[in-house]
Amino acid sequence: MRTGIATVCLSGTLKEKMQACAIAGFDGIEIFEQDLVTSSLSPEEVRTMAADLGLGLDLYQPFRDFDGVTPDLLKANLRRAEAKFRLMSRLGMDTILVCSNVATATIDDDGLRASQLAELAELAGDHGVKVAYEALAWGKYVNDYEHAHRLVEMVDHPNLGTCLDSFHILSRDWDTAPIENISADKIFFVQVADAPKLSMDVLSWSRHYRVFPGEGQFELAKFMGHVVRAGYSGPVSLEVFNDVFRQSDVERTAVDAMRSLIWLEEQSAKWLAGNAPEGSTANGTASRRRYPMELATLPKVNEPAGFNFAEVKAADTAQLEKLLGQLGFAFEGRHRTKDVQLWTMGQARVIINEQAPTHAGPAIAALGFDVDSPVIASARAQQLKAPVVARKVQADEEVFQGISAPDSTEIFLCQGSPDGTAAWTQEFGEGLEHPSAGAAAVIDHVNLAQPWQHFDEAVLFYTSALALEPQPFAEVPSPSGLVRSQVMQTSDGAVRLVLNLAPVQQSPAQQAHKTYQEHIAFAVDDLVSAARSARHRGLEFLQIPANYYEDLDARFDLEPGFLATLQELNLLYDRDADGEFLHFYTATVGSVFFEMVERRGSYDGYGAPNAPVRHAVQYDSLHRP
Amino acid sequence: MRTGIATVCLSGTLKEKMQACAIAGFDGIEIFEQDLVTSSLSPEEVRTMAADLGLGLDLYQPFRDFDGVTPDLLKANLRRAEAKFRLMSRLGMDTILVCSNVATATIDDDGLRASQLAELAELAGDHGVKVAYEALAWGKYVNDYEHAHRLVEMVDHPNLGTCLDSFHILSRDWDTAPIENISADKIFFVQVADAPKLSMDVLSWSRHYRVFPGEGQFELAKFMGHVVRAGYSGPVSLEVFNDVFRQSDVERTAVDAMRSLIWLEEQSAKWLAGNAPEGSTANGTASRRRYPMELATLPKVNEPAGFNFAEVKAADTAQLEKLLGQLGFAFEGRHRTKDVQLWTMGQARVIINEQAPTHAGPAIAALGFDVDSPVIASARAQQLKAPVVARKVQADEEVFQGISAPDSTEIFLCQGSPDGTAAWTQEFGEGLEHPSAGAAAVIDHVNLAQPWQHFDEAVLFYTSALALEPQPFAEVPSPSGLVRSQVMQTSDGAVRLVLNLAPVQQSPAQQAHKTYQEHIAFAVDDLVSAARSARHRGLEFLQIPANYYEDLDARFDLEPGFLATLQELNLLYDRDADGEFLHFYTATVGSVFFEMVERRGSYDGYGAPNAPVRHAVQYDSLHRP
Repeated sequence: MRTGIATVCLSGTLKEKMQACAIAGFDGIEIFEQDLVTSSLSPEEVRTMAADLGLGLDLYQPFRDFDGVTPDLLKANLRRAEAKFRLMSRLGMDTILVCSNVATATIDDDGLRASQLAELAELAGDHGVKVAYEALAWGKYVNDYEHAHRLVEMVDHPNLGTCLDSFHILSRDWDTAPIENISADKIFFVQVADAPKLSMDVLSWSRHYRVFPGEGQFELAKFMGHVVRAGYSGPVSLEVFNDVFRQSDVERTAVDAMRSLIWLEEQSAKWLAGNAPEGSTANGTASRRRYPMELATLPKVNEPAGFNFAEVKAADTAQLEKLLGQLGFAFEGRHRTKDVQLWTMGQARVIINEQAPTHAGPAIAALGFDVDSPVIASARAQQLKAPVVARKVQADEEVFQGISAPDSTEIFLCQGSPDGTAAWTQEFGEGLEHPSAGAAAVIDHVNLAQPWQHFDEAVLFYTSALALEPQPFAEVPSPSGLVRSQVMQTSDGAVRLVLNLAPVQQSPAQQAHKTYQEHIAFAVDDLVSAARSARHRGLEFLQIPANYYEDLDARFDLEPGFLATLQELNLLYDRDADGEFLHFYTATVGSVFFEMVERRGSYDGYGAPNAPVRHAVQYDSLHRP
Repeated sequence: MRTGIATVCLSGTLKEKMQACAIAGFDGIEIFEQDLVTSSLSPEEVRTMAADLGLGLDLYQPFRDFDGVTPDLLKANLRRAEAKFRLMSRLGMDTILVCSNVATATIDDDGLRASQLAELAELAGDHGVKVAYEALAWGKYVNDYEHAHRLVEMVDHPNLGTCLDSFHILSRDWDTAPIENISADKIFFVQVADAPKLSMDVLSWSRHYRVFPGEGQFELAKFMGHVVRAGYSGPVSLEVFNDVFRQSDVERTAVDAMRSLIWLEEQSAKWLAGNAPEGSTANGTASRRRYPMELATLPKVNEPAGFNFAEVKAADTAQLEKLLGQLGFAFEGRHRTKDVQLWTMGQARVIINEQAPTHAGPAIAALGFDVDSPVIASARAQQLKAPVVARKVQADEEVFQGISAPDSTEIFLCQGSPDGTAAWTQEFGEGLEHPSAGAAAVIDHVNLAQPWQHFDEAVLFYTSALALEPQPFAEVPSPSGLVRSQVMQTSDGAVRLVLNLAPVQQSPAQQAHKTYQEHIAFAVDDLVSAARSARHRGLEFLQIPANYYEDLDARFDLEPGFLATLQELNLLYDRDADGEFLHFYTATVGSVFFEMVERRGSYDGYGAPNAPVRHAVQYDSLHRP
């Protein structure tokens, strides 16, 4: 698959964008006109730079408001087009995107549109240019890709074809199957963009909220499957207007973009393998059919079987050790060669890393996941352009395959075992032989705060590299603003990762208070007794206001003894049709705190109605003089 | 008018919110339930604190999903309601907001709804509570305020009335005139919110994008006029869910909120004076009619007649002096007693203030506006809670009335004169007797960068204090992201202020580059000759790329000699149905640059299509190694 990206997706100058695209490994780019107009590079310099960078200049865009106009306007439009064709010749480019008319069309007549497009195609032919005509979702008369295709068929000129843009097609819920009826030599270009499902006017949605494939909710693999079956083999190019990407680091966004196409390529191949074309026998031949577009595949991973460990870094580890001990964790010893400690409770393993910079408060530094094959999972992640994390190991120690997540958390891909033990624990203390007491305890979920400019990137990262599935997101009120919360999890809930997008902090003073901490939650079988034990050991619980329990009673009509127990132990409670959820939080050390949970029945959530209480109490304790 | 605000409008804890409301001068507040549930204050402590702060506790809200339910659910709902009534008695509160059912209603029958609301009213009566029933715009069966009112009429119980919320009414475009048919004793509460016109689902619109009155596009004065004519005289309370306000400084947002109600009160009185009730004679008696609600008025201002001056501050003023001289400004001397210089060109006056902190680069510090009466305008601004700016003056010097804008720019209200001169210029040098050469030059517009968290506040500030009119906003692409641009101007265009909301800079390095500068634009009669003179004097123009002129030609088919002149002088060009616009920019010093413009015909814009070019060239020059 030939990969491409429109320069409008990225921040910076045209030069910076082109360099970032080359570094990320794109085959070609679309030149968005405004990027050229505002650039100090001459067309010839752009051409040379692209050649030096190994980037094809695959599409010049957009040319707007051409068709369905009065004769006077047509004349002006042809003059305008010819100026652009001459410019393209200096750039060495041969394909231009012409969008269906939005602003100046006054005549709704396919015959007239076809004759005007024919004139344009003829003029384009004189300049060696191919016109890719695209139906905008908000085009005045032409807003449907099949309509655009009918016009191309009516004109029947070698220099006129169509451009298929997934946003304009999927935002309108047009059926994508008829894409296969378009002959491949009439599909001049394919643009892909994903988007969250939003109910707003389609123009605003398109201009501000598009995201890269895998970061939204469109069925892009199916769209691409139909494109492949149509016989198309040209560029598949990202055209993503996104307010955040336009402000983010250009090189990083380009890598995020490239990752989305690599992932889309794999998903498209999967869709094709699983969906036989209509009329063919569905006995597996579909997967072996050859199409002009070659789709590369990636090393396969299944979703992880569980958390292997969580690692917290601190300069001074005393508070952490105290907290874990109070929660019921046992100290299993220090590593033979590294400055790290192992603490366990059942199958929940926490590593305390003493190598943090002096004075740095405790922070979540790494997560280990149990996968079928660490080497294959690591190979996959690296093909998806995840940066590799290097860790020094001695000859007889287990080698961890590590990659760096968008928020810099280190992700280790570990060998899981059927009994839930981990071989590397032998490297600690006297060598562990069996899991410690509280055998049923596991890491239930981990909650990571994400920088706002890397939130969508993180969703795609965990989807593509770790096979976690994004759930519908929630917004939680806090005293500092709304917190966007995105759960990524495995189908069985064995791995649950919560990505929190905290509000931008307005002042340096607020930034110093890292209001939105990260946390690790441990699941136990009997939370009430775990909480009693922890209290007995002196644990400092997050103090839940009395008002909360009054409201809880109003909402759930709880048995008075049970309610009293909840309040006595600072436990939070939630209930839904599937089951019940009990949980408590510890005080915060550095930017980390811990949670302990009990899931009753098939409760699958995280106590979201209680999150505002947690945020408010934490805010209050940070801001109290 | 009794002023109020819901605690959900503000950031922070309940205690912080209450304190900020008291400081801003609100009469009362609505307790948003979540703020109480998450608070460590007991209901009795909240009651005492409110009394100490002089704040009424006017409404407890929201109580959701009550009506139109099955008998089982009704029983649970009545139990839930009674718990809240008991809580209200501890808070000393007597009014609760009940929203029309969204989630649990299954029976669409007004008879049933009325009987269930009657049970609720009866129970409320037992606890001394009044129920204000409100139709949510997205209520399952009840989403129209007239429908809610019909139910109240059917029940006919002293403890059941209705709550009117401007958002739920105006977002659905319901006619507001029938408000007058509701008897005043059945209107238990009135909530006001403004909003920009957005085409998105009404729930998201409501939860994220509400703004304070005067910051959006709703016809709130008319809404309030009908409420007043209905005979209502209770609280008028802000209920504004806004993502930005929820993250902003609580005291500042509370003052912004209070300003919006003061302004709305004045606008409502104006609407009443100008709109006689149907059936009455329209001979001015309307304005003299008395209603139970008393509406305070403000000192009146007309829109300013022009800019009096602009002031730029710098530690080292050499570059500024050079730039102004090259643009054609004349140095008129230093002030008798202050470290400031006066430069003029025609009626454009620029003050260079040498009192900036050492090493601070030049920045726009103050703007003077010509008003009919500086004292009256200042009194108005102060009643609108604008902070006063104090400047030292000697006995024989003109006293400037100064206020501080939300971005800290100092705004001076100056005495205009029919011939455009300013008396205070006598305090400079030898004493000026006449305007200098280039008599036609004036300050055309000033462009100020706004911090993102004070953008809406700034719109209301200039609307209410200076009588500038907000125009539809634009979004301009730049290499660092989209720039939101909001023009505020007088009806004759004599004063034009452009508020730019720059994208949040992601890294400290980017923040150090203040990419989005501010500028002052001067209008002249003949830009080409002004540019030639400036070039002759050695002015460093912002260099416009050659690609721009090619595109200009493709778009406008310009006369070749004219196009060559534009390119030779780095002039930008725009044209619309009203006229033409020529302009150029200087290089930037500190965070300031200058623009020179010529308006031909009735051109009323700012060359918006050229703004991306300006942003890109400025970005390029800042980021060039």
